[in-house]
Amino acid sequence: MSSSGPPAGDVASDIPERKKQGKEKAKKEKKEQKPKQAPQKAKKIEGAALIGIDISKEEDLSMWYQQVLTKGQMMSYYDVAGCYILEPPSFAIWEAIQNWFNAKIKTLGVRNCYFPIFISSDNLQREKDHLEGFAAEVAWVTQGGTSKLEKPVAVRPTSETAMYPYFADKIRSHRDLPLKLNQWNNVVRWEFKHPMPFIRSREFLWQEGHTAHLTEEEAGKEVLQVLDFYAGIYEDLLAVPVVKGRKTVNEQFPGAHYTTTVEGFIAATGRGIQGGTSHCLGQHFSKMFNITVEDPTRTETGEKKPPIYVWQNSWGFTTRSIGVMVLTHGDNKGLVLPPRVAETQTVIVPVGVTAKTSDEDKASLYEEVEAIADRLRKAGVRVEADMREGYSPGYKFNDWELKGVPLRLEVGPKDLAARVVTTSRRDSGAKGTLPIDELEAAVPAFLETVQTDMFAKADQDFRSHRKVVDDWADFVPALNAKNVCIIRHCTEGPCEDEIKEMSARKDDDDAPVDARAPSMGAKSLCIPFEQPDGLVEGESKCTNPNCGKLAKKWVMFGRSY
Amino acid sequence: MSSSGPPAGDVASDIPERKKQGKEKAKKEKKEQKPKQAPQKAKKIEGAALIGIDISKEEDLSMWYQQVLTKGQMMSYYDVAGCYILEPPSFAIWEAIQNWFNAKIKTLGVRNCYFPIFISSDNLQREKDHLEGFAAEVAWVTQGGTSKLEKPVAVRPTSETAMYPYFADKIRSHRDLPLKLNQWNNVVRWEFKHPMPFIRSREFLWQEGHTAHLTEEEAGKEVLQVLDFYAGIYEDLLAVPVVKGRKTVNEQFPGAHYTTTVEGFIAATGRGIQGGTSHCLGQHFSKMFNITVEDPTRTETGEKKPPIYVWQNSWGFTTRSIGVMVLTHGDNKGLVLPPRVAETQTVIVPVGVTAKTSDEDKASLYEEVEAIADRLRKAGVRVEADMREGYSPGYKFNDWELKGVPLRLEVGPKDLAARVVTTSRRDSGAKGTLPIDELEAAVPAFLETVQTDMFAKADQDFRSHRKVVDDWADFVPALNAKNVCIIRHCTEGPCEDEIKEMSARKDDDDAPVDARAPSMGAKSLCIPFEQPDGLVEGESKCTNPNCGKLAKKWVMFGRSY
Repeated sequence: MSSSGPPAGDVASDIPERKKQGKEKAKKEKKEQKPKQAPQKAKKIEGAALIGIDISKEEDLSMWYQQVLTKGQMMSYYDVAGCYILEPPSFAIWEAIQNWFNAKIKTLGVRNCYFPIFISSDNLQREKDHLEGFAAEVAWVTQGGTSKLEKPVAVRPTSETAMYPYFADKIRSHRDLPLKLNQWNNVVRWEFKHPMPFIRSREFLWQEGHTAHLTEEEAGKEVLQVLDFYAGIYEDLLAVPVVKGRKTVNEQFPGAHYTTTVEGFIAATGRGIQGGTSHCLGQHFSKMFNITVEDPTRTETGEKKPPIYVWQNSWGFTTRSIGVMVLTHGDNKGLVLPPRVAETQTVIVPVGVTAKTSDEDKASLYEEVEAIADRLRKAGVRVEADMREGYSPGYKFNDWELKGVPLRLEVGPKDLAARVVTTSRRDSGAKGTLPIDELEAAVPAFLETVQTDMFAKADQDFRSHRKVVDDWADFVPALNAKNVCIIRHCTEGPCEDEIKEMSARKDDDDAPVDARAPSMGAKSLCIPFEQPDGLVEGESKCTNPNCGKLAKKWVMFGRSY
Repeated sequence: MSSSGPPAGDVASDIPERKKQGKEKAKKEKKEQKPKQAPQKAKKIEGAALIGIDISKEEDLSMWYQQVLTKGQMMSYYDVAGCYILEPPSFAIWEAIQNWFNAKIKTLGVRNCYFPIFISSDNLQREKDHLEGFAAEVAWVTQGGTSKLEKPVAVRPTSETAMYPYFADKIRSHRDLPLKLNQWNNVVRWEFKHPMPFIRSREFLWQEGHTAHLTEEEAGKEVLQVLDFYAGIYEDLLAVPVVKGRKTVNEQFPGAHYTTTVEGFIAATGRGIQGGTSHCLGQHFSKMFNITVEDPTRTETGEKKPPIYVWQNSWGFTTRSIGVMVLTHGDNKGLVLPPRVAETQTVIVPVGVTAKTSDEDKASLYEEVEAIADRLRKAGVRVEADMREGYSPGYKFNDWELKGVPLRLEVGPKDLAARVVTTSRRDSGAKGTLPIDELEAAVPAFLETVQTDMFAKADQDFRSHRKVVDDWADFVPALNAKNVCIIRHCTEGPCEDEIKEMSARKDDDDAPVDARAPSMGAKSLCIPFEQPDGLVEGESKCTNPNCGKLAKKWVMFGRSY
């Protein structure tokens, strides 16, 4: 095993259609685009070629992604295909998400718990649609030690069928409602598509919330509250914009009554990506698992009503979000991490020490650097002082840029004399200064500005690539130009399937297209809650020219992950 | 599936040797011993028989344990044998342990991460002793969807072999040392012994730390630092006393250089129980996985030395600890939770409301109860106000006692008039009062007293059952009286095996013994760091009369879990 590349059977990208034609040109561009790093020190950078990203995001997203993740120490490859090692910097992001989300769901009265990883085949099979949705990718344990198990057990792909016998047991009366449980765990979906670190892996980490309610209304309210939390993780923590909406029936969760979703966008490929889903399961599972309560109301003649099947929700958010964040913000120097989730928010690098610097001056500089780090730590900033000997400042700059640390402070003898530090933003590269004596307040404020700016930039990117398309003729060209499209649609499955077929790029397409745009057909991503104007009910037609039905909603379509 | 009992193949106790002879007598005793709960309300308690523990800890520990866990909502049974559902109150304890331990290991520079649950058979087999230790209980995934896997993958029983190829890859120079990683995850050991919730289950939750060091000394230092943290979880959080020591070679971790341990004690059965282990793995794994660094020092003639195999540690702490806590503190009213880890530390129950109470008085009482709850919440106390209508105070008292809430506050019209609340301690049952206006300071202090007293009581119990035994003749009788024994010992494996054989209780034993004492032979629990006096090196003999060798250490032996 080596971290330098994926094992056999594991492909870091699922963009097989990327064509080679533009490669030479892109290589040239890359050379020109390659950012100059700490030019004044360039000659002294030792090992820069070893640690840096040597392929651009524009040239080869897949290779770039692999390098950014491994060289940024977010992820390492592993000798079981489709499984990846989450290294401390990415796990720290996951912990930040956990802390934030735990606090939010606590306000809804959700409690954390843990259900077993193994599911008996009897339980797994109790909800037909659900089983059909997952059967193809369930991993089975058939052997314990040297003995064959009497009955194989499934490794959970999700825990509805593990948890709902417990719900049936615990919910005896309407007083036991709502029941709101959540667990953080690992799930396994033995996919046979191309895996991609974070984005599509055979094992991943997530939280799964499972709740039961007396009424559809109450369940529906929670579905949206949780969806807002998911949007909050993306937008407020990861600085990644999302579109909230409802899935079409074609795309909803197997066994759901309806599915809501936050949909992200990978600007580099123009593809949509599902970010997290909050489902109302309706009464499908409560009927299969017999989860009922007495109806607390009576008939007009004062008689008991038949028992009520409870209304259930389930909602899940995964480590995929970290991959979306990397793909959104990363650049040709490596990772770019949003300050709110970065394990290290600020690095301080002493500079300006030369052969002529006296030991005394060097010592007092180093002392000041450590003092600044201490002060920032006490102010709640996650800070590192890079005091490594034997590495040039330029090398250190590259190293921390690769790791995506949002803010670099440089402190040299001249800065000290002026009582300032030099700032360098990872996201924009902008330089500036801050007064040394105001750092406790200035650095947190600075980091918040970086956070806000990162979101604004990504939001602008996504907005400019969400095209409201009126005519079918504009649909495929818009996809080819790396957009997602919002069209008037009948919301019916067969029509979606046809659109997918019709929007797959054919080799004989005449129009010049971006070679890096994906060629698969577009599927419906969601019915955005925020609907554009201009759909007249009972009048507007579905945009698919072969459909002929009336349009019910504006639906966002896109090529997607 | 039902939470009322374990599924077929799952036995809640591993005390099969418990005899029935004392059952009738015990039943009678139980009736007499059964604590009177809220006697003045006894007639009004509806459903008390349904919610209470109906078998005493003394009569049938196994049934008692099952009832305490399920009725206290710590755990539910599950339809895969040996797997259990951790309900919110027990998971909250686990989260308290996680938070405490994460803060501690952070001071050592340990970082959290996540490695895959699957291990390739190639890696699993690379360290021989380790493999032998786990081979019999590894669960294997052989099928994904409907396809048979080309190569089955193991579900991790522990992650040494998952992680050390990564260590080999990341550790290139002594500058990369120490490398200190930790992960919180689930592991599977497909045991065929009788499972017991928390204590022995096929899947359990734990943390596993894995670190690499340049020198044996540095590794050894960390082994003990972590062992102190483990003792801290037991003693400071769970109020459970432990003995720190080193395992004999017979009992150490498969593949370890040496193993240190915290050993607990279940007073109800007189059995020892391993509480958590911190291993120095030496260079066994680094040699197998080729984890080396250049030696930073030179020979006398200035030449490079051969590469150094790194020194490694691994250390793990599991959800078993929660079972030990329950067995230690629980009583015949149910759970008794230590305040520092209890999800709910204090419950407030309004009392003294009768048919004669005016609506106004009731409203002002309820208002005061809510106000007290708010004040305590703001003071950082995890508090619940039990405002349920239709339940008598007596029912509520039973309910919260069952759940182990450390402190109950009762507030009635008379209390209000006197500006006090009535206190009732879950651990001792002691009653008292606290001035209403001082609760913000008084309740946290009260809870700390409960915590300290619970530990002191359990500590006294364990101390009085650790017998220093000089003569073999006293050894088995001491075990039969539910003690663990500290004896002079040669520390050699064959002698330990013989002691185990010799100390198993035979059916033809004449001596009267406690029928509930376990009958299996005693094994070595640890070599306590705190050694009694009276072992003369080169002179004292091993206590086993058939051994004849010199004693090297005082070793703690016991029947055990």
